[in-house]
Amino acid sequence: MTVSPSILPGSKRVPTLSIHADDHLRVTADVSAPISVSTTFDYAAADVRANNYGSSQSYQYSRINTPTAAKTEAVLSALMEGHAVVYGSGLTAAFAVLTEYRPKKIALGECYFGVRNVVEQYKKLMPDVQVIGADCSFDGVDLVWLESPINPTGEVKDIQSYALRAHAAGAVLVVDATLAPPPLSYPFRQGADIVVHSATKYLGGHADLLAGVVVTRSPKQADCLREARSVLGSGAGSLDAWLLLRSLRTLAVRVRQQSQTAARLVALIEGYRRSAMATPCHTPSALELSLGRRIAIVRHASLQQCAVGKTYIHAQHPEGLGAVFSVSFATGEQALFVARHLKLHHFATSLGGVESLVDWRHGWDAIADPALLRVSVGLEAFDDLAADWAQALQALDAHEGRGAAKL
Amino acid sequence: MTVSPSILPGSKRVPTLSIHADDHLRVTADVSAPISVSTTFDYAAADVRANNYGSSQSYQYSRINTPTAAKTEAVLSALMEGHAVVYGSGLTAAFAVLTEYRPKKIALGECYFGVRNVVEQYKKLMPDVQVIGADCSFDGVDLVWLESPINPTGEVKDIQSYALRAHAAGAVLVVDATLAPPPLSYPFRQGADIVVHSATKYLGGHADLLAGVVVTRSPKQADCLREARSVLGSGAGSLDAWLLLRSLRTLAVRVRQQSQTAARLVALIEGYRRSAMATPCHTPSALELSLGRRIAIVRHASLQQCAVGKTYIHAQHPEGLGAVFSVSFATGEQALFVARHLKLHHFATSLGGVESLVDWRHGWDAIADPALLRVSVGLEAFDDLAADWAQALQALDAHEGRGAAKL
Amino acid sequence: MTVSPSILPGSKRVPTLSIHADDHLRVTADVSAPISVSTTFDYAAADVRANNYGSSQSYQYSRINTPTAAKTEAVLSALMEGHAVVYGSGLTAAFAVLTEYRPKKIALGECYFGVRNVVEQYKKLMPDVQVIGADCSFDGVDLVWLESPINPTGEVKDIQSYALRAHAAGAVLVVDATLAPPPLSYPFRQGADIVVHSATKYLGGHADLLAGVVVTRSPKQADCLREARSVLGSGAGSLDAWLLLRSLRTLAVRVRQQSQTAARLVALIEGYRRSAMATPCHTPSALELSLGRRIAIVRHASLQQCAVGKTYIHAQHPEGLGAVFSVSFATGEQALFVARHLKLHHFATSLGGVESLVDWRHGWDAIADPALLRVSVGLEAFDDLAADWAQALQALDAHEGRGAAKL
Amino acid sequence: MTVSPSILPGSKRVPTLSIHADDHLRVTADVSAPISVSTTFDYAAADVRANNYGSSQSYQYSRINTPTAAKTEAVLSALMEGHAVVYGSGLTAAFAVLTEYRPKKIALGECYFGVRNVVEQYKKLMPDVQVIGADCSFDGVDLVWLESPINPTGEVKDIQSYALRAHAAGAVLVVDATLAPPPLSYPFRQGADIVVHSATKYLGGHADLLAGVVVTRSPKQADCLREARSVLGSGAGSLDAWLLLRSLRTLAVRVRQQSQTAARLVALIEGYRRSAMATPCHTPSALELSLGRRIAIVRHASLQQCAVGKTYIHAQHPEGLGAVFSVSFATGEQALFVARHLKLHHFATSLGGVESLVDWRHGWDAIADPALLRVSVGLEAFDDLAADWAQALQALDAHEGRGAAKL
Repeated sequence: MTVSPSILPGSKRVPTLSIHADDHLRVTADVSAPISVSTTFDYAAADVRANNYGSSQSYQYSRINTPTAAKTEAVLSALMEGHAVVYGSGLTAAFAVLTEYRPKKIALGECYFGVRNVVEQYKKLMPDVQVIGADCSFDGVDLVWLESPINPTGEVKDIQSYALRAHAAGAVLVVDATLAPPPLSYPFRQGADIVVHSATKYLGGHADLLAGVVVTRSPKQADCLREARSVLGSGAGSLDAWLLLRSLRTLAVRVRQQSQTAARLVALIEGYRRSAMATPCHTPSALELSLGRRIAIVRHASLQQCAVGKTYIHAQHPEGLGAVFSVSFATGEQALFVARHLKLHHFATSLGGVESLVDWRHGWDAIADPALLRVSVGLEAFDDLAADWAQALQALDAHEGRGAAKL
Repeated sequence: MTVSPSILPGSKRVPTLSIHADDHLRVTADVSAPISVSTTFDYAAADVRANNYGSSQSYQYSRINTPTAAKTEAVLSALMEGHAVVYGSGLTAAFAVLTEYRPKKIALGECYFGVRNVVEQYKKLMPDVQVIGADCSFDGVDLVWLESPINPTGEVKDIQSYALRAHAAGAVLVVDATLAPPPLSYPFRQGADIVVHSATKYLGGHADLLAGVVVTRSPKQADCLREARSVLGSGAGSLDAWLLLRSLRTLAVRVRQQSQTAARLVALIEGYRRSAMATPCHTPSALELSLGRRIAIVRHASLQQCAVGKTYIHAQHPEGLGAVFSVSFATGEQALFVARHLKLHHFATSLGGVESLVDWRHGWDAIADPALLRVSVGLEAFDDLAADWAQALQALDAHEGRGAAKL
Repeated sequence: MTVSPSILPGSKRVPTLSIHADDHLRVTADVSAPISVSTTFDYAAADVRANNYGSSQSYQYSRINTPTAAKTEAVLSALMEGHAVVYGSGLTAAFAVLTEYRPKKIALGECYFGVRNVVEQYKKLMPDVQVIGADCSFDGVDLVWLESPINPTGEVKDIQSYALRAHAAGAVLVVDATLAPPPLSYPFRQGADIVVHSATKYLGGHADLLAGVVVTRSPKQADCLREARSVLGSGAGSLDAWLLLRSLRTLAVRVRQQSQTAARLVALIEGYRRSAMATPCHTPSALELSLGRRIAIVRHASLQQCAVGKTYIHAQHPEGLGAVFSVSFATGEQALFVARHLKLHHFATSLGGVESLVDWRHGWDAIADPALLRVSVGLEAFDDLAADWAQALQALDAHEGRGAAKL
Repeated sequence: MTVSPSILPGSKRVPTLSIHADDHLRVTADVSAPISVSTTFDYAAADVRANNYGSSQSYQYSRINTPTAAKTEAVLSALMEGHAVVYGSGLTAAFAVLTEYRPKKIALGECYFGVRNVVEQYKKLMPDVQVIGADCSFDGVDLVWLESPINPTGEVKDIQSYALRAHAAGAVLVVDATLAPPPLSYPFRQGADIVVHSATKYLGGHADLLAGVVVTRSPKQADCLREARSVLGSGAGSLDAWLLLRSLRTLAVRVRQQSQTAARLVALIEGYRRSAMATPCHTPSALELSLGRRIAIVRHASLQQCAVGKTYIHAQHPEGLGAVFSVSFATGEQALFVARHLKLHHFATSLGGVESLVDWRHGWDAIADPALLRVSVGLEAFDDLAADWAQALQALDAHEGRGAAKL
């Protein structure tokens, strides 16, 4: 008989932290936190003296902090092993990092086009800022922005190697880990200095809230960010913050399940692609051809793992690789055809929610491959999603065949 | 390579239904449903003719139906394999069943005291109603109310045998399956005529909404219930209905995980109890004594299964037995001591939520054993909950020992 | 210089009570109350002893009470000069009154058809109950249900005379004052024993919440109602209760303004009707004819006041007569034509909100005159509403003229 | 008989616009708008072609726009006679103006310290920016930021004269009109180029939402702001935007009433101050002394009007002067004493809500006079607020007297 002696705060288990890391912030008996909406709070009147409004009270004005936001940040801090500051959106969070660090030379990896836009906006204010790629020399770089896993392919970068290079150059390493929240990845463990998330995605997980989070290693950095957030009023909305807290309670079960289903779906679709290829030992059947021959490339961290030099992946992701992957075809028309024929995947942007989504990134981002679809796997049963892909791929093949027949 | 051809509506997989069974009710492009609050809806003006307001429009007045409630009922209907009608609370749902069927003789099984109160309230209006136990003869009985699993022990009743007896007597069988929602149990499969849930519990699952549901076999029965609900205004609140819909998206992952953790925790605590008993082959260690000797009985469906004649349990519950169980001690003081010393279980009533709860039922229900604690297991990590029980049981033993030492 | 010395709780001024009557219930520093959603509340653990869960804590379970509902009831109690109990809808409130008093003979005045349906529902449970009209002898009557002002005409009944008759017969007088909330009417002052409101209407005032309220003279009666409400789970939804509290903050400015605008609009439309009638001293102009000749009757308390024996009206309504009135035409087709042609009045049911609404009651209530439209005046500017009626009435006249021309 | 022919969209009446200016944006039959929460929206699938996601659909992603935000902006645009863009807070709105115009030399009038902080934050990014006072020469100035009425005194600036000076210098005039929303002021009429509001204050009006708004003269400017807002994710939260829409329905009745009550309260307190001064014709009574002798200065636009050269005030404010004013004493201790003794004014920051508030601005803003209290008048009855001030002023006098006595 073994007795596990650890209990909070010593515990590091994600599901427990998700539910109890804000227990110390409750001021009423409500088991489930109320939705804070008040913009202003009565002073503990006796304590108001010159310039001390902020020093002795938890809450004065909702632009600064609210009871809900404080709880949400407490849970995120515990989950992310740092000090979390919540913003109105992921891009607000990204802009907060830039305005806090005010880098003069940024190394920007392959990333979400929204972040590229934020950097552009930053450059409008600071025209002398230089932006280079993350695979260039970091000479003179003061901030490296790395996304891992990468949107839209779900492929994983070697954070540790970027951390070593960034730190050697005296730069700060910011990791946008939106596509792999806890318990999937913990970028501080690989040397990140700042971790950023669009909480709109997995952390929110229900496609019904907009929020972002910056996580720092030190409480002091977080305090600086919070001060600037108060000045600019860039925190999350009242319901957004509350829904985020509610969503975090189920984070581990959602993300683990979505990640597992995605890995199976990637294997299935990649299997379709391979089975459709004739080899000396394999002549594809009609069914195999109809399912797989239109697929050009499938990308996901699970497919990277076989490659040489990718041993870092398992170390970074012991519990799963995320639920976003991409499927590419020969043409944009084919990609759009499949997007329109999937029935259990909404044809809509965003990712990380309980509903499977498929998005045609070229519509948003001119540099994205028009033949690529980004897939975000939700909580539906694997068998149903598999059937959905099978019918859509077969429909594409039938459609193309008819097209060919016409010729 | 196998291709699973089924897709909605043929699909029966719970997680998929949870997310897509309301797809056909969307009237806007919002992927996540907005929170309906309007009490009134513009008439499609051309259609208003004598007495036809209700015939050609989806929504006229929120007491009758709302876009959110319609979606919530669609998902519940699909999950529960019937026709779901949502109410403001589980007890409102219970009262709706009674006022719809207006039974003259009720066979009432062991059940939640709240339901007993509803029956009392019904008797105030219908003083001639007879109420007997569910193990008496069903002669003359017109409605049998069965709870399975039973609150507060989590033990399971043989629904099929009650259905046979009820139907032989010409009675309707109502099953309150609050403690085992889909995918754990489907009472219609064992012959129930009506299934009732307090949606406040597992279906809601976050301790932040109050709702109930009655599920019927025929759409006509559901329509009758809805008509009476319109007359009495007994539907769910606007946010309650919306949060319930949001909660259903994660039902399967929550309930499966909670049920698994509970089964492990029951085995652990029952193991503590047994290990503390001296047998010819086993002399308990000091640790074993401190953990187990104060526990009198542990009750849960998983401990019933070993008993003779309980083969129905696996048939009723192929995917899990629920996350509520009871632990009894020698005295009420011991039970209260443990309730107060558990750190990861809120000492609060209710059950089914993401947070583990412990409740002392005697405080609510005078006929409940004062020495019994009801436990509802949440989504916390098993190891953390196990550690919590270990420390609380050891604290009790140390406390009692000190008491004994004094003597 | 005069100094008004009164301050809460001595104050009786409605706007102040609307905003401060719940001040004593705040447990946090939030100036604006958070939205309570928790269904369960941690016990003050040390206080839990046999059967005392309810005795020493404010909140245990949300079916019984919530922090928001308690505040809402405190404000309503102060405004209504009694003890308010909030329900999920106005009809739930009506049913609660019936099940609490369990009358055997009910005198039911002209009233909202929804209340008639509730009485029918009550009769299904209590088949021996007799229902008579409110102008019959009250001999043997134990409950008189009076609506004032009356829906859909907005005409006012003499509450005091009904109170005298009811009390002489030993009956309880229930007044449904939905159409004239404070500061417009206070039925306890005229002898009502119970006051009922559909809070969905003026009290909510924004067409976005469903709630009802029963107000009693004694705290004990209110406690009995609350106990039955706990048993049946018939309280208001979490957001409904919170929005109601938010709405009460502006009750006086909304209701006074709506009532004033309505009185002006009634005078205008009645003026149209009269100006279109040829008299020895008046030959209507073409404009006068086009505006007024299709109007058969306009009904509202302001038009009753001229009648003999209606002096009670001013006494009952010193601050205004309510914002609901009716306009009748010759035929149902004419009524529907006008309803469809009003542009600033939604053609939708309900009343009391910030938006002007017009409803064709015959569509809901077969005994309502098909030629009658119910109008609920909102917060729009009088001039705009006046212009809207003018164009709709002229459009009707033109339409009818064309019809005639065809013949 | 006169018939007012105007109807929307020709109408300019504030209460009507508040309720109907978003009618054209409704896509469902809901009379009261649902609370939009979806972050993503299904594409009208057939319309998705290269780079056109945004061109043919109303909503794609909630960072860009939502059904609720669109309605809120439509109402604000109509009310403010321009093109409104909504932000997460008033200061976010201010920052958006700065980053859009990127001024090199700012003339900054007396204003809310929060705006000064935003300018400081802007200077961190643009270190060469010059900031001068609004009464300096506008030579080289490209943006003038004027607040009127001024926080915390409620005094009014001559917008037209600043507009003339600004435009002569080629500068843009931004007017922060937070303290006088429609129907109180319309700064575009006096020549403002941009109007800014903290919607948290009067527009929200219930102390339960955080939002800001920038209003431009041209739709193109608004589109530029919206594009930048999409990039930075700086829009309002979902519930904040919805509550703002709900609040706008009652804007006119709230603001007119608050403004009238404030004017009466200012006259009363200023009357106290004057009556306590001995003149050849007036020897103050003991009561007059106790009420007025501790008051040093009362400031509000209504007290400015008597001054020479202030004829612009009536022109700018034909319908009222706002509900914020200041009362100064001799010392900070006196100010704090009064703040603590007012019973119907929360001692809390913010302004514009239904609850009267008193704030000690020195606690937030070191350059504010410690002896000054800012008062924001809510919707309570004038008599009650008057009584509250009388008792607090008398308590101060008694307290000071006792203090003096001790000496």
